Amino acid sequence: MALTPTRDDKFSFGLWTVGYNGSDPFGGPTRAALDVVHVVEKLAELGAYGLTFHDDDLFAFGSTDAERQTQIDRLKGALSDTGLIVPMVTTNLFSAPVFKDGGFTSNDRAVRRFALRKVLRNLDLAAELGAKTFVMWGGREGAEYDTSKDIQQALHRYREAVNLLSDYVLSKGYDIRFAIEPKPNEPRGDILLPTVGHALAFIDTLEHPELAGVNPEVGHETMAGLNFTAGIQQAMYHGKLFHIDLNGQRSIKYDQDLVFGHGDLHVAFSLVDLLEHGGLAGGPAYDGPRHFDYKPSRTEDETGVWDSAAANMRMYLLLKERAQSFRADPEVQELLRSAKVLELATPTLSEGESFDDLLADRASYEDFDTDAYFNGHGFGFVRLQQLAIDHLLGAR
Amino acid sequence: MALTPTRDDKFSFGLWTVGYNGSDPFGGPTRAALDVVHVVEKLAELGAYGLTFHDDDLFAFGSTDAERQTQIDRLKGALSDTGLIVPMVTTNLFSAPVFKDGGFTSNDRAVRRFALRKVLRNLDLAAELGAKTFVMWGGREGAEYDTSKDIQQALHRYREAVNLLSDYVLSKGYDIRFAIEPKPNEPRGDILLPTVGHALAFIDTLEHPELAGVNPEVGHETMAGLNFTAGIQQAMYHGKLFHIDLNGQRSIKYDQDLVFGHGDLHVAFSLVDLLEHGGLAGGPAYDGPRHFDYKPSRTEDETGVWDSAAANMRMYLLLKERAQSFRADPEVQELLRSAKVLELATPTLSEGESFDDLLADRASYEDFDTDAYFNGHGFGFVRLQQLAIDHLLGAR
Amino acid sequence: MALTPTRDDKFSFGLWTVGYNGSDPFGGPTRAALDVVHVVEKLAELGAYGLTFHDDDLFAFGSTDAERQTQIDRLKGALSDTGLIVPMVTTNLFSAPVFKDGGFTSNDRAVRRFALRKVLRNLDLAAELGAKTFVMWGGREGAEYDTSKDIQQALHRYREAVNLLSDYVLSKGYDIRFAIEPKPNEPRGDILLPTVGHALAFIDTLEHPELAGVNPEVGHETMAGLNFTAGIQQAMYHGKLFHIDLNGQRSIKYDQDLVFGHGDLHVAFSLVDLLEHGGLAGGPAYDGPRHFDYKPSRTEDETGVWDSAAANMRMYLLLKERAQSFRADPEVQELLRSAKVLELATPTLSEGESFDDLLADRASYEDFDTDAYFNGHGFGFVRLQQLAIDHLLGAR
Amino acid sequence: MALTPTRDDKFSFGLWTVGYNGSDPFGGPTRAALDVVHVVEKLAELGAYGLTFHDDDLFAFGSTDAERQTQIDRLKGALSDTGLIVPMVTTNLFSAPVFKDGGFTSNDRAVRRFALRKVLRNLDLAAELGAKTFVMWGGREGAEYDTSKDIQQALHRYREAVNLLSDYVLSKGYDIRFAIEPKPNEPRGDILLPTVGHALAFIDTLEHPELAGVNPEVGHETMAGLNFTAGIQQAMYHGKLFHIDLNGQRSIKYDQDLVFGHGDLHVAFSLVDLLEHGGLAGGPAYDGPRHFDYKPSRTEDETGVWDSAAANMRMYLLLKERAQSFRADPEVQELLRSAKVLELATPTLSEGESFDDLLADRASYEDFDTDAYFNGHGFGFVRLQQLAIDHLLGAR
Repeated sequence: MALTPTRDDKFSFGLWTVGYNGSDPFGGPTRAALDVVHVVEKLAELGAYGLTFHDDDLFAFGSTDAERQTQIDRLKGALSDTGLIVPMVTTNLFSAPVFKDGGFTSNDRAVRRFALRKVLRNLDLAAELGAKTFVMWGGREGAEYDTSKDIQQALHRYREAVNLLSDYVLSKGYDIRFAIEPKPNEPRGDILLPTVGHALAFIDTLEHPELAGVNPEVGHETMAGLNFTAGIQQAMYHGKLFHIDLNGQRSIKYDQDLVFGHGDLHVAFSLVDLLEHGGLAGGPAYDGPRHFDYKPSRTEDETGVWDSAAANMRMYLLLKERAQSFRADPEVQELLRSAKVLELATPTLSEGESFDDLLADRASYEDFDTDAYFNGHGFGFVRLQQLAIDHLLGAR
Repeated sequence: MALTPTRDDKFSFGLWTVGYNGSDPFGGPTRAALDVVHVVEKLAELGAYGLTFHDDDLFAFGSTDAERQTQIDRLKGALSDTGLIVPMVTTNLFSAPVFKDGGFTSNDRAVRRFALRKVLRNLDLAAELGAKTFVMWGGREGAEYDTSKDIQQALHRYREAVNLLSDYVLSKGYDIRFAIEPKPNEPRGDILLPTVGHALAFIDTLEHPELAGVNPEVGHETMAGLNFTAGIQQAMYHGKLFHIDLNGQRSIKYDQDLVFGHGDLHVAFSLVDLLEHGGLAGGPAYDGPRHFDYKPSRTEDETGVWDSAAANMRMYLLLKERAQSFRADPEVQELLRSAKVLELATPTLSEGESFDDLLADRASYEDFDTDAYFNGHGFGFVRLQQLAIDHLLGAR
Repeated sequence: MALTPTRDDKFSFGLWTVGYNGSDPFGGPTRAALDVVHVVEKLAELGAYGLTFHDDDLFAFGSTDAERQTQIDRLKGALSDTGLIVPMVTTNLFSAPVFKDGGFTSNDRAVRRFALRKVLRNLDLAAELGAKTFVMWGGREGAEYDTSKDIQQALHRYREAVNLLSDYVLSKGYDIRFAIEPKPNEPRGDILLPTVGHALAFIDTLEHPELAGVNPEVGHETMAGLNFTAGIQQAMYHGKLFHIDLNGQRSIKYDQDLVFGHGDLHVAFSLVDLLEHGGLAGGPAYDGPRHFDYKPSRTEDETGVWDSAAANMRMYLLLKERAQSFRADPEVQELLRSAKVLELATPTLSEGESFDDLLADRASYEDFDTDAYFNGHGFGFVRLQQLAIDHLLGAR
Repeated sequence: MALTPTRDDKFSFGLWTVGYNGSDPFGGPTRAALDVVHVVEKLAELGAYGLTFHDDDLFAFGSTDAERQTQIDRLKGALSDTGLIVPMVTTNLFSAPVFKDGGFTSNDRAVRRFALRKVLRNLDLAAELGAKTFVMWGGREGAEYDTSKDIQQALHRYREAVNLLSDYVLSKGYDIRFAIEPKPNEPRGDILLPTVGHALAFIDTLEHPELAGVNPEVGHETMAGLNFTAGIQQAMYHGKLFHIDLNGQRSIKYDQDLVFGHGDLHVAFSLVDLLEHGGLAGGPAYDGPRHFDYKPSRTEDETGVWDSAAANMRMYLLLKERAQSFRADPEVQELLRSAKVLELATPTLSEGESFDDLLADRASYEDFDTDAYFNGHGFGFVRLQQLAIDHLLGAR
């Protein structure tokens, strides 16, 4: 059945997601830690294809080499037993006290050096496990006060870090690309590279921009009041959608990490439609992992953990089904045409037309009837949107 | 006196700012239109050095050539009489019904062609008046619904437009650069290039990226919950701060366009400090126009209009005075050092150090004492911030 | 068919909603004004049962008595011809320049007196037309700056106004109740009585609190980041949901006035469920008008106006259908029970139990096993929410 | 010196504030716990007059009676040694797993009973320590999903709880009043009684409303985009400002708990002006504790903890000094008069005037010149606000 997840759906989960113990700023854990082997087995059973992790999720910060290796071996065993893969790995540069002012951009140079070492070591592990994407969420790279951080210097240091890591990956011949994950705030008052846009711009200043893309998260862009689907489209315009974090967020507030689709449902629908089919007027679909970066609500016990994991996949598949129905509806296609959504794919200038040609075209200006746009030339956007909602709600 | 504006301060105002008639979504004008000659004279008297305008501010949309020329001549006369200059010009692609779905990225190709013609004509006027910056605020480039706009195509069309305009400027030999002004929403539900970051990233995809920079506005970034000073620093990191719009905004809500400094005062202080002195750990200052893009409150009559214009400049000069005192204080410099704010300018790697060298440096990892960061190695950020506020408040 | 509106659905529209001409802070009208008779006829045809209006919608501010009467007569004729009713009337105290600092709470006493006269006159008209609810949206009652308004005094003046109007209504024997409509900001920087809560509290200070309730608007509470359905429940707890304004708003930004359901779809679903069925654990439903206070998008021509009017009603009916299915599902009822949602209706104390009894009950404290709530006693909230979404999406 | 805190300033701190260990959703503690005796000594030394606490701050959840008593005795000893008092006590109903769905309004009745017992016990301790205010912050009373909580029933249960506690306090003869602390969200998706307004309205439904007031927190109202000073004025209008939580918050985001004045500085200024002097047009000042509910930034070690504690008091005293200068300035008084801020204290109706009298007063309507408000009758609010900022900045 279409709503039963299979590995072809490429659903992956962070070890820290289902493993979230319920701790938050106002309360401690409500659930015990989950063992990684158990997590891999349960995710495999539910239909996921991948597990991702931070180093510190798998083996505690400060583990001995032996402790670390034991956990790696246990993970490998579980992957082998279940067929799950590790499509992405990431490094925790935000939890330990040493990172209290960040990792790559801590004011403290010794911390920056330590952070690089921690990431280099984890890159080796990522390569060993076959991960193709290395996510960098710089949640502690930021400040509460404008006086505590020189942002220009922070960007220079961030660039220095990514350049070094890129050199390393290239020199080692690793088949790994970096995906920067933006976030506007929390846990810092303001975080470096706060939105998809800022990250995309930063990437262009790297020595190897081809190695870096973005890993946008639904909730993070929503926390800046931005339209997530629009942001993903800009990332795709730049060819930089390397990975994606799916979850739910209700309005501008603390980072909720709800189940995907349990936040803004219109955006979830347009997002799945985009990922599955490409833009409304064309362009490629997304074929990477559908990665859920969410937290099972603190009110739940382990049953609720797996229910919520399943809910993420069900929501995606439901929305995919509705998006297919939306695209296949001839009335939708007709409204996309009459609302000129498709016309936006036609260049404004004709083939070979120069500005001189345009200036000479009286129809474009001197004879153009601007008055006709008052009380006329309505686009029909509301009708089209209602039709989309009808499909979303299964009402057609 | 330091708080009296002079032309060296490079204060400029939009004609539409002091000329705002008080109309808003829930009420009509409370003030009559101001004549451009009167505006130029008053601004000169108050100490400004520049006037900026949209074409439609100076001559109504749909003016005949003669009407248009009359207004241009009147403006030129006033500039000549007062010595004011026109540092920036911009084109209105958002008010007339024809632009109801945008200008450069309207779904309607005929509208896009008309928009280009309108801008080309206004570029000639900008060059004629000696403007060095041409601002592009695409307030109508956007959508209310995800189904009404293919954002990737919209970005392609936006790029096509800027490429054409760049060709034109280069071919005409105009000494003009473009400055894109981001905004997250209002009047559209979501606007293309919603933040400084998105605009910076877009610029890198242009044929002539060197001709385009950004014109960030305090209120617009604030409407996305972003730290304006941090955004400006990223623009400076990219070498793209071509122009700036100063005003005030209180939290995430409709676009308030208050007087500069009447919004977030901490950010206003750190911004002026940055523009005047460069980053805390070094880097160039900003030497372009200090452009006020604000609206005199609707409750005011013309006296209040000029009071508010003067308030913008007074706020800037007050904050400049406080920033000078902040920078000159030895205790501040000492705290910047002890909080390692200055250390962030030191590269993380030593001169010539490779990743192999770093990997071989046991001090960076194996022997690094991460435990010392628990209950120790405090940064002293709060003390430094309080000291900054003391300077801001003139309490030292 | 269940999705075809009928008069029993009690759908009403403001004359200013479908009549919105598209004017906004950055552009003028894109549509011509609609005649009231035409509006009444179209709404009747689409299935609405009521029209509401501000005085200034029907006859322009400053109309002569004759002009005013002509318009009233034309409206009455149209009502008579179509069977539409006027369930609610409201007064415009925000558009004319005289109200630039508010009506009931303008700093200017002469304006406050004028405002009262304008409302008194409109109350007579409301009574004449048989309206049962008189809405008071104080959009201009507020300030941009903390120094320009003494809020305590403003509340005293607001109370004075409502007290006087209540006296008037009682003395005239009008069958009219007042409904205060909160809004946090826009067009003022901060508005008096910014949320449903503030309005409810204020009502308790009136001489005739029984005559006043609230008229919450989806978008307004959403602009404060508040959960609209939760706010409505508090209004119902107080017995004060006298009227409701349905529309759509996407996150915290300018007042969008989208079609109902085109904003937060989860909240729209839970709201309709609440209005139609009462609380999850019981309590009365809402039987007043379902009033749409929205704006047809500025991109639309008149066809889009009526499409959007129809979309509001379709959305409500679709959500009503899904809410019925949700309530009727035995699995939902079982999950509501197991998640103890229904148990919240059971008082915490037993019948007749005193605090002494509670203190003596060792099971409540000394012998209560708090440890069992770690890793156990999960509520199953996510499973329940997913089931609700399944019903919302018609996926069960 | 005026900027040195003394006990007459009534500055108090929560034990959990300076005691905050730096743990947040993305990282563990960066500081060790502080002993209560040490905290009392340090606060006394810095000039505070009071310490407040949750039960769980002083003795861990689940402490034996002996452990609990030891800590109480140690606190009492420190109070006695330093002269500090405990003006307020509060109960933690949000950290332990048992409260994962709330305390007074948990869906689980057994939890509600346990919560009442926990509070009753803590009320005895509050009385024993001489606290006059008992704060109730219901941070876990709420929901992530509309289906998981019947808000009307939750309000009934909350009322039941406060009624019982009020009975207890009255019956015991305790000199204690309750202060409800609103918050819109975090740690729950939406919290019951989200704003000052909602709490004020709720209080009117209690059996002993005279025993309950509010404890507004700067950051919490700011998280809903509301103007804190305006909210405090409404609380004062209702006579319900029983206690206040001072801190700093920058825009709508996660709960930052910055130092007071390190958030919105304009609001901090108008707030201190209000608390110290009453409304601009009159009314009583606030004479309760100035309670700081903030968190020392996670980047700081213990030195930074005490620096930040001192910064709170310094900010208050600086703002108090500036507010005194503002009030004493004759030009301010003149502008308050000309902007008619003071006129708002004059009732709209004359002494003894009825609605009939008003209707008969042609000057109020028929002869009132509304046109004069176009292009005239400006209020001068911007000039007044700039003057206030001049005082705030010490620039006059």
